[in-house]
Amino acid sequence: MLHPDLELALKVTEMKRLKEWVAIESDSSDSQKRGEVIRMMHLAAKKLKELNATVELVELGRQKLHGYEIPMPPIILARIEKNPKKPTVCFYGHLDVQPAKFEDGWSTQPYNLTEIDGNLYGRGTSDDKGQVLAVLHAIEALQKHELPVNVKFIFEGMEEVGSNGLFTLVEQRNNTFFSDVDYIVVTDTSWLSSKPGITYGTRGNCYFFVEVQGATKDLHSGSFGGVVHEATSDLIFLLNTLVNSSGHILIPGIYDAVVPPSEKEKEFFKKSEFNAEKIKTKFGLKNFTYSTKEEILTRRSCYPSLSIHGIEGAFSAPGTKTVIPAKVTGKFSIRLVPNMEPSEVINQVTDYLKEKFEERKSPNHIAIRCVIQAKPWLSAIDGPLYLAGKRAIKKVFNTEAEMFRIGGTIPIGSHFQEVTGKSAMFLGIGGPDDAPHGQNEKLSRFNFIEGTKLYAALLEELASL
Amino acid sequence: MLHPDLELALKVTEMKRLKEWVAIESDSSDSQKRGEVIRMMHLAAKKLKELNATVELVELGRQKLHGYEIPMPPIILARIEKNPKKPTVCFYGHLDVQPAKFEDGWSTQPYNLTEIDGNLYGRGTSDDKGQVLAVLHAIEALQKHELPVNVKFIFEGMEEVGSNGLFTLVEQRNNTFFSDVDYIVVTDTSWLSSKPGITYGTRGNCYFFVEVQGATKDLHSGSFGGVVHEATSDLIFLLNTLVNSSGHILIPGIYDAVVPPSEKEKEFFKKSEFNAEKIKTKFGLKNFTYSTKEEILTRRSCYPSLSIHGIEGAFSAPGTKTVIPAKVTGKFSIRLVPNMEPSEVINQVTDYLKEKFEERKSPNHIAIRCVIQAKPWLSAIDGPLYLAGKRAIKKVFNTEAEMFRIGGTIPIGSHFQEVTGKSAMFLGIGGPDDAPHGQNEKLSRFNFIEGTKLYAALLEELASL
Repeated sequence: MLHPDLELALKVTEMKRLKEWVAIESDSSDSQKRGEVIRMMHLAAKKLKELNATVELVELGRQKLHGYEIPMPPIILARIEKNPKKPTVCFYGHLDVQPAKFEDGWSTQPYNLTEIDGNLYGRGTSDDKGQVLAVLHAIEALQKHELPVNVKFIFEGMEEVGSNGLFTLVEQRNNTFFSDVDYIVVTDTSWLSSKPGITYGTRGNCYFFVEVQGATKDLHSGSFGGVVHEATSDLIFLLNTLVNSSGHILIPGIYDAVVPPSEKEKEFFKKSEFNAEKIKTKFGLKNFTYSTKEEILTRRSCYPSLSIHGIEGAFSAPGTKTVIPAKVTGKFSIRLVPNMEPSEVINQVTDYLKEKFEERKSPNHIAIRCVIQAKPWLSAIDGPLYLAGKRAIKKVFNTEAEMFRIGGTIPIGSHFQEVTGKSAMFLGIGGPDDAPHGQNEKLSRFNFIEGTKLYAALLEELASL
Repeated sequence: MLHPDLELALKVTEMKRLKEWVAIESDSSDSQKRGEVIRMMHLAAKKLKELNATVELVELGRQKLHGYEIPMPPIILARIEKNPKKPTVCFYGHLDVQPAKFEDGWSTQPYNLTEIDGNLYGRGTSDDKGQVLAVLHAIEALQKHELPVNVKFIFEGMEEVGSNGLFTLVEQRNNTFFSDVDYIVVTDTSWLSSKPGITYGTRGNCYFFVEVQGATKDLHSGSFGGVVHEATSDLIFLLNTLVNSSGHILIPGIYDAVVPPSEKEKEFFKKSEFNAEKIKTKFGLKNFTYSTKEEILTRRSCYPSLSIHGIEGAFSAPGTKTVIPAKVTGKFSIRLVPNMEPSEVINQVTDYLKEKFEERKSPNHIAIRCVIQAKPWLSAIDGPLYLAGKRAIKKVFNTEAEMFRIGGTIPIGSHFQEVTGKSAMFLGIGGPDDAPHGQNEKLSRFNFIEGTKLYAALLEELASL
C-alpha cells in the first residue's frame, strides 16, 4: 500500500497532472487535431522516463483521413525491469479521446478539468487518461519503497478510431517485447456498479458507412422537390430496415453465431450490484428496453446491438435550409459478441442493404463500407491474474470484486489473447456513471485516488503469488 | 434602353458592386452572422440614397435564434418619385442568402465573387443580390436621361428564413406606402430555360422540425446499445413514413386541395424550352422521376413535394463516433400549391406523425413544430404588368417570354396579392442552372448585363402603356 505520508502529496500532483493531460485535445477522429494526439504521446513518454522507464516511441507512418495525409501518433513501448525472477506485468492504455464540444451540451468546458462535488469533469478523465495516470502514479508511489514486479507499458493514441497499427505491432513484438510478459492488464474499462469490478469480456464492433449518392450537387428543394429521387430519403429507408423499435436487429443471420451466457455468468448477473434506477436517473432515461437487472446485463454484454449514430452530408446545423443533399452517409455500428466474426457480419450487412436497396428501385448509387472491425473478447477467469485482481480489490475496498463483461469494445482484448497467449484482464477504476463518449464525462476524485492504490495493490499481490 | 456610352462603364462598376455585395456573408439562418445581414441592408440603403431615393430603414426589434437574442435586420422602404401622373412600380428583393461553406463542395470560395468562363460564382449572385443590383443599375442608367416611371423599393434580409416581420409591415403600410403603387415586381426568381421568362406562380412551404428526445445525455453505444430505445432510430422510422421512393407523399389528405394545371398552362408546358437533359448534366442527375418535359414541369410547379433535409443533434461530422444521441431533430419541408392551406397541412402532418409514433410504442418523447409557413401564389396574367413584361423581353432578347410557375417559394407573392390587391409579377434574370441554395451558385455575366437592360425596358414599357 502507499505510504501514508505520500498520499496528500500525490493527491495534489495527481490532479495537476490530470488537468494537464485533459487539456490536450487528443481527439483521434479529427484530422485537424492529430498534432494534439502526438503531443499527448510525447507527454506520456516524458512521464514514463521520469519513472526511470526505458521508452521506445514506435513510429507508424502516415494515414489518409478526410482527404488529408497526416502522421499516425507513435505507440509507446516502455519497461521498468529490475529483477528477472519477479513476474512482469504489462499495462495497456490509450491516450486519445472521443470528440467533445461544449456546444454538444457539456456543463463545463470539456478540455478544462473541473472539479464539482468530488467529481473531476473533462474529456478523457475516465476514458482513458485518468486510468493510465493512476497506473503511473501507483508505480511512482511504489518506487519510493520498491517496485514489487517488473512493469511494461503499451500505450496508443488511436484506440477510439480502431487502434490502427497496434495489432500489427503486437504481432511483430510478440517474440521480443511480449516474450517475458506474464500478465497483461488493460485499464480501458470501468466498473459495472459502485462496487469495484473486473472485466473479463468485451463486445466487438463493426462500424459501417452507407453512402447514397443522388445528384453530384446539392439541389434546391423548391426547384427539384418532387421530380428527383432524393438520396436522403433513400438513406432513411435503408437505415429504417436495420432495427425494430425495441432494438432487435433485422439483418438475417446476425444472431446465428451468438453464444448465450454460461450458468456461472448468470450467477454473476444475479449477484451484481448494477443499479438500473441510478443509471436511469443519471442519464435521464425513461426505461431500459428490458425490465430486470439480469436481462439488461445479459443483453448488453452477451448479445449484439445496432446503433444509428447519424448522417454526414445532410443538413445538420441549427435553423433551416431548403436543400436536397447530393450525397449522404449514414453511420451505424453493430456490437459483436462471441462467436460473431466481423467478416461474416460485414457480408450479412452488405448483402441485406444491397437487397433492400434493390427493392427500392432507386437510380441513386449506394456504397457500403465497414471502417472499424473489432472482434469480441472473452477470458478464462480462474488463473493467478484474476486471483490477484480480486485480492487487490478486497484489500483496498474491503469488498468482493464484481465480475462482468462490458458492452463496449476494446479490440485489443481479443488480440492480446490470440497473439501472445498471455493471461489478460481488464481492470479499470472508472465508475458506472462516468459517461465516457458522452457529455460531461467524469472520474470521481475517490475513484482516481483509491484506484491508484488498487493498481499498487495489484502489483503487490502479483509479486506475492 | 441604355445609352451605349454607358454600357462599358456599367459593366465594370456592376461587377465591382456585385463582388462587394457577395463578400458580405448575410446568411440569415445563422445567429452568428446577423451583423452581416444588417451591414448588407445598410449598404443597399446607401446605394439607394446615391440614386436620390428617400430611404426608410424599418427596425423590427429582436428575435430569439438558437438560444441567442439577436436584432432583426431592418426592412428597406424607399421611393424615387417625380411625377404623380406616371405609374408607380414597386420592386421587391431580398439581400440575405442561404448558408454556404467552401467545405460543402464549392469549387471557389462562396463569398468571393469569381468569374469563370463568363459565369459569376458566389453565394447570392443569382438569389437575390445580383438581381436586386440589376434593378438598381437599370435605374441608375435610366436616370442619366429620365426615369420613365415612379419607383419604390421594399428590400428585406430575412427571406431565406421566412420573411419575419415583412408580412406585418406590408399590412401596416398598405394604406400609405402601397397606396399609390400600381405594380409590384418581384426579382427573386429565375428563368425556366435559357429563354427569358416570367413567373406567375410559386409554391408555398411548410418547414417542419420533428424532435425525438430519448435520454437527457448522449450515451455510449457500447454501454447502452441494445438496452435503450434510441431516439435516432425512432426519428429514422418517422422520417421513413413521409414519402415513398418515387417521392409520393404518404400523409393522408395532403393532395386533397390540389388544383390541377389549367389547359392554358398545359400549353405553356408544351411550348416550354425547359431542357431536362441540360439540367441533368449540370447537376449530375441520373434521372428525373418523370420522363417528359410536361410531366416534370407539371409536377414541380403544380403539385406538392416533400424533401428531407437532414438531422440536427446526431453525429454528422466526418469520421466515427460511437454515440447514441440523446435528442435528434429531423428537418423536412413540404412545398404547397393552390389551394393547400398551411394550417391544414400542419394538422395533417402532426396528426400523421403522432399516429405513426404511437404505433411504434416508444417511450421517447416527440415534438413537432412548423417553423416556416408560406402560402402558394398564383397570379392572373392578362393585365398591363404582364403585357409590359412580355414586351420588354421581346425588346431586349428578341424572343417570346416563357410563362411559368416555379417550384420554389417566395412567400411574399401571395401576401402582396392578398393584402394590397395590386398586380404582382415575378421577373428574374437568373438562368435555369444557377444553383441557388446549392454549391457553386452563379449568375452569368450575360444575364447580369442584359438583365439590367430588361429591367430598364420594363419601366419604359410600363410608362408607355
